[in-house]
Amino acid sequence: MLDQSTICAISTSPGSGAIAVIRLSGDDAISITGKIFRSPNQTKKIEEQPANTLHFGQIVSKNEVIDEVVVALFRAPHSFTGEDIVEISCHGSVYIQQRILEILVENGARLARPGEYTQRAFLNGKMDLSQAEAVADVIASSSAAAHRLALKQMRGGFSKEINQLREQLLHFTAMVELELDFSEEDVEFADRTELRKLAEKVEHLLGKLKNSFHLGNAIKNGIPVAIVGETNVGKSTLLNALLNEDKAIVSDIHGTTRDVIEDVVNIHGTAFRFFDTAGLRETVDKIETLGIERTYDKLNAATVVLLVVDTQNPYSVVKSRIDKIRERLAPDQQLIIVANKIDSGLEETKQQLTSIQLSAHEKIVFIAAKQKENLNELIDLMTVSVNLDSASQEDVIVTNARHFEILKHAHEAIVRVLNGLDTGITGDFLSQDIRECLHYLGEITGEITNNEVLGHIFKNFCIGK
Amino acid sequence: MLDQSTICAISTSPGSGAIAVIRLSGDDAISITGKIFRSPNQTKKIEEQPANTLHFGQIVSKNEVIDEVVVALFRAPHSFTGEDIVEISCHGSVYIQQRILEILVENGARLARPGEYTQRAFLNGKMDLSQAEAVADVIASSSAAAHRLALKQMRGGFSKEINQLREQLLHFTAMVELELDFSEEDVEFADRTELRKLAEKVEHLLGKLKNSFHLGNAIKNGIPVAIVGETNVGKSTLLNALLNEDKAIVSDIHGTTRDVIEDVVNIHGTAFRFFDTAGLRETVDKIETLGIERTYDKLNAATVVLLVVDTQNPYSVVKSRIDKIRERLAPDQQLIIVANKIDSGLEETKQQLTSIQLSAHEKIVFIAAKQKENLNELIDLMTVSVNLDSASQEDVIVTNARHFEILKHAHEAIVRVLNGLDTGITGDFLSQDIRECLHYLGEITGEITNNEVLGHIFKNFCIGK
Repeated sequence: MLDQSTICAISTSPGSGAIAVIRLSGDDAISITGKIFRSPNQTKKIEEQPANTLHFGQIVSKNEVIDEVVVALFRAPHSFTGEDIVEISCHGSVYIQQRILEILVENGARLARPGEYTQRAFLNGKMDLSQAEAVADVIASSSAAAHRLALKQMRGGFSKEINQLREQLLHFTAMVELELDFSEEDVEFADRTELRKLAEKVEHLLGKLKNSFHLGNAIKNGIPVAIVGETNVGKSTLLNALLNEDKAIVSDIHGTTRDVIEDVVNIHGTAFRFFDTAGLRETVDKIETLGIERTYDKLNAATVVLLVVDTQNPYSVVKSRIDKIRERLAPDQQLIIVANKIDSGLEETKQQLTSIQLSAHEKIVFIAAKQKENLNELIDLMTVSVNLDSASQEDVIVTNARHFEILKHAHEAIVRVLNGLDTGITGDFLSQDIRECLHYLGEITGEITNNEVLGHIFKNFCIGK
Repeated sequence: MLDQSTICAISTSPGSGAIAVIRLSGDDAISITGKIFRSPNQTKKIEEQPANTLHFGQIVSKNEVIDEVVVALFRAPHSFTGEDIVEISCHGSVYIQQRILEILVENGARLARPGEYTQRAFLNGKMDLSQAEAVADVIASSSAAAHRLALKQMRGGFSKEINQLREQLLHFTAMVELELDFSEEDVEFADRTELRKLAEKVEHLLGKLKNSFHLGNAIKNGIPVAIVGETNVGKSTLLNALLNEDKAIVSDIHGTTRDVIEDVVNIHGTAFRFFDTAGLRETVDKIETLGIERTYDKLNAATVVLLVVDTQNPYSVVKSRIDKIRERLAPDQQLIIVANKIDSGLEETKQQLTSIQLSAHEKIVFIAAKQKENLNELIDLMTVSVNLDSASQEDVIVTNARHFEILKHAHEAIVRVLNGLDTGITGDFLSQDIRECLHYLGEITGEITNNEVLGHIFKNFCIGK
């Protein structure tokens, strides 16, 4: 089943640089290289060289020298894919890169499909599926937090958590299935209280993992932050000030409609995805009368909502805006009330705001966006709101939508087990649900898989990885 | 004088790929790597590893794992720069690349300037200056012909030619200066006829090299081809057909004014730079009356002029257009008369054109651009016109503007020598001119140089090379 052909691809970023690396993997990687490589003294045979060594020479095709290169040799199984690998470092012109690829194909290699190196690493047992998936995330990570999560997953942190769950479930099912073997004797080897405890523990862990996806996805793609408020309260000034705070604007992403514009900004190692909506640029009242529920959908997608209010307005006006937004937010959304223009605000408004009642999910900060006053305090609040520090250091965070889907199913199965225990269901039904839960967890690490799933996972990789 | 600091830079193409390579060069390259590299068993010391070996491990900073990498080790003097070099292959995210660079700088490396690796290779005697300059050309080459020239120069082909010239000049000056030592005795060791022969040979070689720049520059930047003719003769159709012939449009370059649009197309391994001018889209007569000399400047910059004529027109009209263009062309410009629309042309016009008198620099081809008929014949004619095949295989071609400037000066000096021989100038004057010629040639290979020249040469390199 495993495709044995030798594959080749440019593994470095497309375009022209000082050098580029072309990677060959497969049984014939070294012999194909041998056909086109010529050492300075013309006598060195690349096939006879030991693993993990570097060799300077020329790539030659039909007696024409294509480039001077350095060839790196890795031998199976001690390589990324677990196969023989040759990496050719050539001069980084697009022309040379293409020519060498052509020559490799002429000599028996074929062009690699997206993610095929990583797929082979998985198929050869060099890493499990969730680790392989993390390779793409490591490459795509653009903030310290996202990078840390991806690297942790690539190094097996997530797999460890899943395997612990599987062990507990296997222990559980062993106890239940032992009863089944002796079912005629109506013994109960597995203490039901004990079983319940174990199932609750597994349910708790699965639930925690499942719920971590909201945060994990936010870290991976940028914490969604909505800046809302009436016109002229300083929303744009605030956004610009935040963007200027750290110049590393990762990207300008235009939504499906032109009225939603997003900016991903890397602040202190965390990516925040700021968005503003056309609707919310109007007054809150007008939005409501227009019934632009779509705008509120966007608001509801935010992990953090920055409600900008103008302290130059009377407190009653400000308070009414705050309450209207509060009504719209889900309980787990973080609201930061940004009291702006404190340099010229009304004393009474500022004072009343200082003593406003806040829930656990609400915070208030007083700033002057134009003067960039207290911006750091706001940034700290944003970071605290999403509680990244504790999360990313200790807990395993799910960042992958496929894993999230599977965890949902696994969680449903374990909930059925708990319900079964409540209603005194028979051991064979219990066992079936536990087996289902085990099956799902196996799909995360790739112990249970099929070609379709693999194809789907690796098609989104870049070529050369 | 030689900067001893250890330098670091990303050597692969900017942006994110599967992998990226960060290169360190200098006395501390290996010890700096040792501070941040951790092998899987945590015991391997990178400082103790032999040259030309590969090592898998982690880059660690303050106990945080930044990435899993492969480290390649080169030891002085057997490396590109002649110094110790470490190449770190990391995952290709921009974030990881930047973090590793930061960590290297924290540990004592400094960021490399553009071309600094190649500059060090030159300063450490790994290559001469013209070879170092060719490294940038190799990286920038985007056609087979340009690549072949650059690679030849990088491998020392040009230097060999220059050194042969220098040897001949040294022989010459030795003869002349021997006379000077015995000047009181008024002997003539150097047979003047012999000297003249030698000087003529040197002058011929220098002249040939100097003149090759026109072609070399064309190969490097694309052979300039002007497509001219009246409106409606099929110029645009022809251009599009040529562009479609090979989809590899290298770039769309807009001239300083919008009315000149250039397309560089790679046809059979040679880059052709097609351009059309606004003025020449009008009738030739109108141009002349408007006196758009600027348009003719462009025409004169072309190595090959494709004059498209419509065989549907009477021969007299066609002939008149041909003659008007002929008047405007310099003797070394190649004219290809492209007789278009042969499928619907007048028999008489076609017949007359078949027997038109052509000079050595003129050719004619009969095509139907719309039906793409005989396009290959036209392309062959274009390739033959610039005579690339013979040129790029045997002769040394000058592609570098700096070399061209120096060769001009060297050529002037040798012409003064020849004139001096004619007028019976004294040996010491002869010697001075020869020494000047030698000096210039030394500037090409870098035997005679200064920091300012070096700075100017390497500042146009990319960082990481």
